[in-house]
Amino acid sequence: MNGEKGYYTTKIRVRYAETDKMGLAYNGHYLTWFEVGRTEFLRDMGFTYKEAEKSGLRLPVIEAGVKYLKPARYDDVLTIKTCFGEKPGLRIRLVYEIFRDDSKLATGFTEHVFTDENLKPRKPPKWLLTKILEIWQKTVTQ
Amino acid sequence: MNGEKGYYTTKIRVRYAETDKMGLAYNGHYLTWFEVGRTEFLRDMGFTYKEAEKSGLRLPVIEAGVKYLKPARYDDVLTIKTCFGEKPGLRIRLVYEIFRDDSKLATGFTEHVFTDENLKPRKPPKWLLTKILEIWQKTVTQ
Amino acid sequence: MNGEKGYYTTKIRVRYAETDKMGLAYNGHYLTWFEVGRTEFLRDMGFTYKEAEKSGLRLPVIEAGVKYLKPARYDDVLTIKTCFGEKPGLRIRLVYEIFRDDSKLATGFTEHVFTDENLKPRKPPKWLLTKILEIWQKTVTQ
Amino acid sequence: MNGEKGYYTTKIRVRYAETDKMGLAYNGHYLTWFEVGRTEFLRDMGFTYKEAEKSGLRLPVIEAGVKYLKPARYDDVLTIKTCFGEKPGLRIRLVYEIFRDDSKLATGFTEHVFTDENLKPRKPPKWLLTKILEIWQKTVTQ
Repeated sequence: MNGEKGYYTTKIRVRYAETDKMGLAYNGHYLTWFEVGRTEFLRDMGFTYKEAEKSGLRLPVIEAGVKYLKPARYDDVLTIKTCFGEKPGLRIRLVYEIFRDDSKLATGFTEHVFTDENLKPRKPPKWLLTKILEIWQKTVTQ
Repeated sequence: MNGEKGYYTTKIRVRYAETDKMGLAYNGHYLTWFEVGRTEFLRDMGFTYKEAEKSGLRLPVIEAGVKYLKPARYDDVLTIKTCFGEKPGLRIRLVYEIFRDDSKLATGFTEHVFTDENLKPRKPPKWLLTKILEIWQKTVTQ
Repeated sequence: MNGEKGYYTTKIRVRYAETDKMGLAYNGHYLTWFEVGRTEFLRDMGFTYKEAEKSGLRLPVIEAGVKYLKPARYDDVLTIKTCFGEKPGLRIRLVYEIFRDDSKLATGFTEHVFTDENLKPRKPPKWLLTKILEIWQKTVTQ
Repeated sequence: MNGEKGYYTTKIRVRYAETDKMGLAYNGHYLTWFEVGRTEFLRDMGFTYKEAEKSGLRLPVIEAGVKYLKPARYDDVLTIKTCFGEKPGLRIRLVYEIFRDDSKLATGFTEHVFTDENLKPRKPPKWLLTKILEIWQKTVTQ
């Protein structure tokens, strides 16, 4: 399991569609890449977001931030590293780092709440909370 | 009513997010602009797509095409002209022209079917079909 | 001049392309909407970003953040209010508020540096800095 | 070489950002997926589009079309199959098929011209044309 150490890495390649006329990846797409990192991080811990939605759970973003350190460019293969940013509870804070080889291009975070289909706050299933806290434990002791 | 002659024109401005590293608008975004043209064309005939969805109607795209004649660039103000491409029935074919001033930049079409929420084909409400055919009549006699 | 009071408001309508399967506007698109707000704010003070790029100036985003207070939905007409978030210098911080009618849906910021075409920091033209500081003055005294 | 038979297959996973409120992948993103298929098809034949651009070559899209047969949904793993649609010359026609397992979800095409950086038509390098025709030969005899 890639996420054994409390974080998970996944790769994407920058699409032409994601560049802008400055020749760089457009700033808004980093949030989409965070989504990719998050989805795979959660999948790795047995939480398929698609399945979660079928069971009536939602995890909308309530806050997000990105620091752009160095530009990402067309066709770059980027590594997205995802982990929890603080002890998960009813709110979940994920932090991200984006690398091209050893070069850190961006950092960021997203904050989420567990809700039902009508976006009313609800508790996540117990197994999920247990799993999340287990991963969090690895994060702090890594 | 803008659509009185059987077509409707609306304007958009090319966003930086819509450009690519070639310095032009990325080819995929034209389909989004067609969506904007279509939405306003339908709204002009009293058919708010948002309300239609609430009533259980869907109008998914089953085919689309674009011819890129001249590049659209960042910050260009584009005019999208939308009309029916053939006599509307259970299928709807819309055709689009995109202009910057008098210069035609692109043409295209989308083809749609009326469905219910589960994407099963269904008839549109009668008032809508009547309205659509009325607009179509103007298109052919214009 | 809309920006006379030190801020500028512009409107956009949420596109179907900008929604996601939760039925809301996808979180990444808010950064594109901020771009629209920023572009029009700058245009209003006589600074066309397109022209600026032709003169070799760039204003890349080095940091961005969004707080999602209430969901924006398909076909919503949103008002984007843009102003300076702190005294402009070599760095520019813009802050944004997004409203649907009187309801505040989101707030956020972007931070920028002035660079040349190779993304090396450079000073903005003096007229621009003067203009920016003039607007800033209105912001703080408003 | 994956492309030995005259076509190339690559995989993508549908992102949440690519869905719309109908719960399906938005129609415009198929053109981005075609771009992914095309990029990898060309890479497989030793033609890195990024390198090509550095040498002054461009391959803008002049026409595109998509037939949407069955909806693609969030988190689906899709296979994109790309090959030449007709004998390549100064124009290149690529055709695409998108599958989820054995189910064909969409077909489409893009047509391109070789140009220089100013979008003036130019001949591709001879080695590239030779390579392209070699792949084409495999396509017709497959």
